[in-house]
Amino acid sequence: MAWDVVTLGEGLVRLTPPAMRRLDEATALDIDVSGSEANTAVGLARLGKSVLWVSRLTDNPMGRHITRRLSGLGVDTQHVIWTEKDRVGVVFQEDAVPPRSTRALYDRTSSAMSRIRPNELSASIFTPDNARMLHLTGITPALSSPANNTALHALKRAVEAGWRVSFDVNYRAHLWSSDDARTGVEPFLRAADVAFISRSDAHTVYGLAESLPAQRVLDTVAAYYPQAVWVLTLGSGGAIARERDGKIYKQDALKCTDLSQTGSGGAFSAGFLAAYLDGVSVQDALKWGCAAAALKRATPGDLAVLDKHDLTRLVQGIK
Amino acid sequence: MAWDVVTLGEGLVRLTPPAMRRLDEATALDIDVSGSEANTAVGLARLGKSVLWVSRLTDNPMGRHITRRLSGLGVDTQHVIWTEKDRVGVVFQEDAVPPRSTRALYDRTSSAMSRIRPNELSASIFTPDNARMLHLTGITPALSSPANNTALHALKRAVEAGWRVSFDVNYRAHLWSSDDARTGVEPFLRAADVAFISRSDAHTVYGLAESLPAQRVLDTVAAYYPQAVWVLTLGSGGAIARERDGKIYKQDALKCTDLSQTGSGGAFSAGFLAAYLDGVSVQDALKWGCAAAALKRATPGDLAVLDKHDLTRLVQGIK
Amino acid sequence: MAWDVVTLGEGLVRLTPPAMRRLDEATALDIDVSGSEANTAVGLARLGKSVLWVSRLTDNPMGRHITRRLSGLGVDTQHVIWTEKDRVGVVFQEDAVPPRSTRALYDRTSSAMSRIRPNELSASIFTPDNARMLHLTGITPALSSPANNTALHALKRAVEAGWRVSFDVNYRAHLWSSDDARTGVEPFLRAADVAFISRSDAHTVYGLAESLPAQRVLDTVAAYYPQAVWVLTLGSGGAIARERDGKIYKQDALKCTDLSQTGSGGAFSAGFLAAYLDGVSVQDALKWGCAAAALKRATPGDLAVLDKHDLTRLVQGIK
Amino acid sequence: MAWDVVTLGEGLVRLTPPAMRRLDEATALDIDVSGSEANTAVGLARLGKSVLWVSRLTDNPMGRHITRRLSGLGVDTQHVIWTEKDRVGVVFQEDAVPPRSTRALYDRTSSAMSRIRPNELSASIFTPDNARMLHLTGITPALSSPANNTALHALKRAVEAGWRVSFDVNYRAHLWSSDDARTGVEPFLRAADVAFISRSDAHTVYGLAESLPAQRVLDTVAAYYPQAVWVLTLGSGGAIARERDGKIYKQDALKCTDLSQTGSGGAFSAGFLAAYLDGVSVQDALKWGCAAAALKRATPGDLAVLDKHDLTRLVQGIK
Amino acid sequence: MAWDVVTLGEGLVRLTPPAMRRLDEATALDIDVSGSEANTAVGLARLGKSVLWVSRLTDNPMGRHITRRLSGLGVDTQHVIWTEKDRVGVVFQEDAVPPRSTRALYDRTSSAMSRIRPNELSASIFTPDNARMLHLTGITPALSSPANNTALHALKRAVEAGWRVSFDVNYRAHLWSSDDARTGVEPFLRAADVAFISRSDAHTVYGLAESLPAQRVLDTVAAYYPQAVWVLTLGSGGAIARERDGKIYKQDALKCTDLSQTGSGGAFSAGFLAAYLDGVSVQDALKWGCAAAALKRATPGDLAVLDKHDLTRLVQGIK
Amino acid sequence: MAWDVVTLGEGLVRLTPPAMRRLDEATALDIDVSGSEANTAVGLARLGKSVLWVSRLTDNPMGRHITRRLSGLGVDTQHVIWTEKDRVGVVFQEDAVPPRSTRALYDRTSSAMSRIRPNELSASIFTPDNARMLHLTGITPALSSPANNTALHALKRAVEAGWRVSFDVNYRAHLWSSDDARTGVEPFLRAADVAFISRSDAHTVYGLAESLPAQRVLDTVAAYYPQAVWVLTLGSGGAIARERDGKIYKQDALKCTDLSQTGSGGAFSAGFLAAYLDGVSVQDALKWGCAAAALKRATPGDLAVLDKHDLTRLVQGIK
Repeated sequence: MAWDVVTLGEGLVRLTPPAMRRLDEATALDIDVSGSEANTAVGLARLGKSVLWVSRLTDNPMGRHITRRLSGLGVDTQHVIWTEKDRVGVVFQEDAVPPRSTRALYDRTSSAMSRIRPNELSASIFTPDNARMLHLTGITPALSSPANNTALHALKRAVEAGWRVSFDVNYRAHLWSSDDARTGVEPFLRAADVAFISRSDAHTVYGLAESLPAQRVLDTVAAYYPQAVWVLTLGSGGAIARERDGKIYKQDALKCTDLSQTGSGGAFSAGFLAAYLDGVSVQDALKWGCAAAALKRATPGDLAVLDKHDLTRLVQGIK
Repeated sequence: MAWDVVTLGEGLVRLTPPAMRRLDEATALDIDVSGSEANTAVGLARLGKSVLWVSRLTDNPMGRHITRRLSGLGVDTQHVIWTEKDRVGVVFQEDAVPPRSTRALYDRTSSAMSRIRPNELSASIFTPDNARMLHLTGITPALSSPANNTALHALKRAVEAGWRVSFDVNYRAHLWSSDDARTGVEPFLRAADVAFISRSDAHTVYGLAESLPAQRVLDTVAAYYPQAVWVLTLGSGGAIARERDGKIYKQDALKCTDLSQTGSGGAFSAGFLAAYLDGVSVQDALKWGCAAAALKRATPGDLAVLDKHDLTRLVQGIK
Repeated sequence: MAWDVVTLGEGLVRLTPPAMRRLDEATALDIDVSGSEANTAVGLARLGKSVLWVSRLTDNPMGRHITRRLSGLGVDTQHVIWTEKDRVGVVFQEDAVPPRSTRALYDRTSSAMSRIRPNELSASIFTPDNARMLHLTGITPALSSPANNTALHALKRAVEAGWRVSFDVNYRAHLWSSDDARTGVEPFLRAADVAFISRSDAHTVYGLAESLPAQRVLDTVAAYYPQAVWVLTLGSGGAIARERDGKIYKQDALKCTDLSQTGSGGAFSAGFLAAYLDGVSVQDALKWGCAAAALKRATPGDLAVLDKHDLTRLVQGIK
Repeated sequence: MAWDVVTLGEGLVRLTPPAMRRLDEATALDIDVSGSEANTAVGLARLGKSVLWVSRLTDNPMGRHITRRLSGLGVDTQHVIWTEKDRVGVVFQEDAVPPRSTRALYDRTSSAMSRIRPNELSASIFTPDNARMLHLTGITPALSSPANNTALHALKRAVEAGWRVSFDVNYRAHLWSSDDARTGVEPFLRAADVAFISRSDAHTVYGLAESLPAQRVLDTVAAYYPQAVWVLTLGSGGAIARERDGKIYKQDALKCTDLSQTGSGGAFSAGFLAAYLDGVSVQDALKWGCAAAALKRATPGDLAVLDKHDLTRLVQGIK
Repeated sequence: MAWDVVTLGEGLVRLTPPAMRRLDEATALDIDVSGSEANTAVGLARLGKSVLWVSRLTDNPMGRHITRRLSGLGVDTQHVIWTEKDRVGVVFQEDAVPPRSTRALYDRTSSAMSRIRPNELSASIFTPDNARMLHLTGITPALSSPANNTALHALKRAVEAGWRVSFDVNYRAHLWSSDDARTGVEPFLRAADVAFISRSDAHTVYGLAESLPAQRVLDTVAAYYPQAVWVLTLGSGGAIARERDGKIYKQDALKCTDLSQTGSGGAFSAGFLAAYLDGVSVQDALKWGCAAAALKRATPGDLAVLDKHDLTRLVQGIK
Repeated sequence: MAWDVVTLGEGLVRLTPPAMRRLDEATALDIDVSGSEANTAVGLARLGKSVLWVSRLTDNPMGRHITRRLSGLGVDTQHVIWTEKDRVGVVFQEDAVPPRSTRALYDRTSSAMSRIRPNELSASIFTPDNARMLHLTGITPALSSPANNTALHALKRAVEAGWRVSFDVNYRAHLWSSDDARTGVEPFLRAADVAFISRSDAHTVYGLAESLPAQRVLDTVAAYYPQAVWVLTLGSGGAIARERDGKIYKQDALKCTDLSQTGSGGAFSAGFLAAYLDGVSVQDALKWGCAAAALKRATPGDLAVLDKHDLTRLVQGIK
């Protein structure tokens, strides 16, 4: 089997003022890489899974920086589609500590990924023996119509190949409306074996009040898409999951010192999926997800540069 | 109206080892700007108020650095008095996290500001229509006799113009004795509409024991200067205020992660005054003050580079 | 008179790896500002001229960085047009020393400046008493049709107001073809009092062989647009100029150590125009231009952060 | 008396990625100095004690860096043994915040210190009038057989000179087995006036379960070596000590923000020994130890660059 | 064909003070990678050749840094032999500008590469169809007896597979005597199709006076090993080559600004070999070598991070 | 003999923008140490001479930084006079490459050194056996009347002790007038065995036209003070010296790449004096002076951090 997980998404150059400086006052920017699927791919690779990350990038130093960084962290980038045209998306990211908010200034208009076409995906990827799972998020269908078509195409091919499907709703208000999102993610959720949603996305996309008990949220989304194991992330409240049979599992968040407040969502799904693919119980997969999220927050930058040894120790330490 | 607030004070070049290094071991220093009134001016400007900061500076790269930084943050510096002589004050500042103390090595001897003369203040500033408030602190009268005379002159002209007066006691032990301070701040406090004092200054300058209940402290200082709204800052205890009619309002400090332990006093008065000038209640002004102080502590450097959006969100989150 | 010179052009955030590192290997980028007209504006301001720089920028930290930097260097930016939409152009710039070439990766698609409209220009700018000269370059008309229309509109209004016109051909191959350029710059050159062109642009745009003697190049372009004083820049060969009466003046380049190979064109025109506006001879203006270009090359970054004292000393040292 | 304390140990160049970056992703490394005995020496010197640090180093920039740093912090390095051969040990250290672990990649094979011979120690050091105490740790005997012999030689000479002996068990699993350690530290503990051991070393070296009450641990080790004052460090639990007469003293850890998780052990012994040598009670010495450890954690790098003023204030603040 | 060139050699972590600081005063070190064969491999990869670099490294962050950097620059590192033991060699390198000398403090004792054994080389590498050339240098046989045996083994297998052989004498005085070197390189030179030697190595290893005309040097070494095309590098004097038939070709050095004085030898052989493998004339290959060396000197760090576009332009510019 | 050379002068903290940035735009400053006598002391120490540097400094982190840096480079600072009062002088230094000028913004008002008193000099320094030479410059007498008195006192005691005297005219226009300088340096020059003067100081202080042949300059100053060996430094023209018998020796400057344009004067005198004290010929001492100056220019910062090996090689290479 070539890969445990195949994923598709946009990679952004993340430019961040050092030492929590304000973007408004920065005189230099550290170069990092960002992107929810890329982040999950890195986390999975660091936990020993083989991962293929597919994207479309402009062939210039910024585009090459993205693949060099990801492959340096163990992610397979051989099927990235390179173009001479378009541009590489950039996010100017201001890291912060509470009570300051982090700020993200997305500059991804006309990005190469937003112009990806289904027929650019290498057909050789989607064979039954090549992978066990396709992981997608709600960001790719929101990027553009071509990106949506490509994500749907990948989904179709993966399902045909008999792979499992993981989907993270990951609603981004600056990319589409909540109505569009609800409709847009439907085909993906309908095919999902594992589905991730955050509390605030459940509120925004499905109108489920933030005061609703977590289990009720899970029951509601599971009523729509009952074939999936549902994972609801609660930020500082940890995470809660629902098996197909309705059983509920909870896990508190782990205590951590924040060096960066971004990227913990992608780290969570990496931790959860790595464990899930190993066939552990949903309860244990939640532990891996929460531990990975905590470890990520204690790591500078956006990517889930986890350490398997650290993570194992943390998970074992959870009572 | 040209400005909401006019303020007068010394601007210092603040040289700080990066990454909380010790001054004794630093190999490089980050350049920042410091000064209580400049700090409040920046905070007010970031919250949308128009502010004039008046000072006297030597016309060299260090002096120009101060005005460039302040005007880049929205403060009007057009009435700064430039001289070819004297020098620009410097503070070598060691930032620290608890239980280490921050260290400030002041090097302000013979500074241009300590030699300011009343007749150097542009007469055109002090007209009734030009501003709503003059903000001063106890640092300027403590700097030197000429600085004291100039502060008194500004006070007189502001009162004549019908502006309101804000005064922050801000006692500095390395500049004058507590006896001199008590006498020195008297004319300013007698004219103040709003007066700020910290718990430890109340102890040092007025001999009010630190064990005395906060309300008793307020009642005592208000007995001396009953015409002012008094605000007593309590550090991690938040702040407490007393209306002229004796009513007491309290506000807890907001939880924050410290990136810098300096400048929160200036941020507090900026938050309080911005709200106060908007005509909100003293209770609400305390919220703005405490939120601004918390936001400042989560911001590197000395200046109150606040974000109005963040601050509004924080204030709204206070129960 | 409000301004000596008014100019209009795009401002870019310039992101550069420190210490001449390769973009392909950079891990951090220094933030600077770039743009030919902005550069000339900075140079003029540093030489004591009052300059208005007009542009259109997205109101975000990157856009504000551009105006903060320029106004910090003495350029008036009050008529910049701010928008919530579009984006701020970026140039990833790799500095280099010979025989390495500098690299510029322009990322200015959909920039706010490319969508400027003539009616956004403040009408109050173009009065006879407001300025002495309008300075434009061939970059703005090349950016987009709206930018071209706006530049033409500014030209028309300036001519009506009786200002003099300076124009720098500044051909950019990635923005338009040489044929389009030749046609596009025509209205500007027809109105120019001073016109700048580089040797290689004379070759590309007007087909004048690089082996043609410099004087012949000048005579040819002057045949097309005889009303202008023509300045031909020759890189390491210095510069040569032609008065309207056909008289030729030459100036060798000054020896310098390169800290940055970009921005010397803008510095040259700043030096030349500052002298020209002071009414010195063309021969002397060439000296100022060449000295400013040399000083710029010895200065890091893209902007002509000149020092008038240095420049005067250099010009006086030219035999 | 030449020195309050003489100590002997390895000095390492400590190379650390800035800003808590991962070693796997670092592009630059900050140079610091590491070594338990060097660290204690620095702490003692900063608290006003005169300290001689003896070691063996290769005479190259890295070796000289170590002595320059230590002598710059007040430690006497005049008896360091310089060689043209061997190498200077290096530790690549990854700092971290919880729940990430710090990582240390020791690269000390064939170091100059591991090849020190007893007869290289200057005989002039060990006279009765020269010092009051010899401080050693379990690291030096673990380094190599020559290092062990040299430590034993120093011990013998110190005892003959009538100095007191301090010994910190400081077990390092990568240098020797727990069985070897138990035997190896025996001669040092038999001679010790003060002995330090951590909870986890008590477990590893003496098989005392981590669940055993701290006092029981102390009683057990004191049964083996009853002539010593025993100090058991408990990490976040503070420290507990046992006088020769069996009296027990406890001290909670002080609250602190961690800038570095290494070096607090050496800081603790510096604080404890500085007080102990001043003749204060064991209870008070524990306060100095715990306060020094807290202050160290709030200081970047590995060395106990303490400030006596800070420390005194902290100790006085302990109830 | 899997690779154009296969090479074998040690990879070192190169730690360098930024901004040409002295090692004796450095407070931080930039991490780079060094090693003659690695350098040539990078240069070849940047010029479009496929290259396999074989080495033995300890599996820790420093070892992984080396392969990550090389593969990020396009070199295939899949056959690197990883071990849990030994250490990664380090070179503390002080860059300098004339007349200061660069300094290299090699710390490679007990490195993993010095303990490589012939049977650790993957047998699958050396098939006739896998590669066109083996490139070795005199450093590897000098490292240790096991390294020498492994280099001899690789040579034997490459010759059996019908590959061509390139050998760079590259004498290192700190690794072996000139007598040992002369004997040691013999088997490699006897098999070489292309041989590189510097003027000073010709002097040291073969006793050929530095005053001897370059052609005489070439004739002498070619008398020993007549089957090779010989290239003699002359530093600022460029290079000179001798065809098997005795024809001599010369190329002057290109003018350049030095950002780093190391690595130009490896860049030269990369440029020469890339052209040579393309079948150009020896005269043209010399141009490529000299241009690559010049470009390298204008690039920070040790590695030949060349740009093919730059290099082509430079070569075309050589008259 | 305790010291080869004793010197007395001010030590300044030198704050410099990295990477040749302009002071007007700096955001950080590198900390270095400056001072002509300190610089010569460092150069002498690096060349193996024992040197005592005497000064008066405020006991704070900046003052301690100066002695720590100097003693780290081998200079004896045990007789520095420490005070709790006054301040440490600062120079904000802008490094530059030609044709930009370096800029120095001196901020030394009220410095501790300017208030040194003769009786603060330790009497134990000036014994016949303690040193061979006293080195002074014209900067110390220019600082203040107390500094002048102290320098005169040191001169008197050194002469009484039978030491030789070296004096560098080193005129500083911002400290005194040329008339005051001419008178002020007289007692020092009258006692000098070796006297240094630069071409421009000969012009400013003694009115000797810059067009006057160098030998004529030497003859003129030697007519005033015939007892001294006179050395005239000519910048890029090298140096020329005159023995007491009138014999003239010349030495061209060595070619170098400039990393810093300051400190070469102090490096020159260090090189010259080190050789002179070794008893070499004046011709050879000039070689050492010029080589040291060239090496300094290739070294970042202000101090003559020379390398004896490099210097010896350079001197040997001079034809």
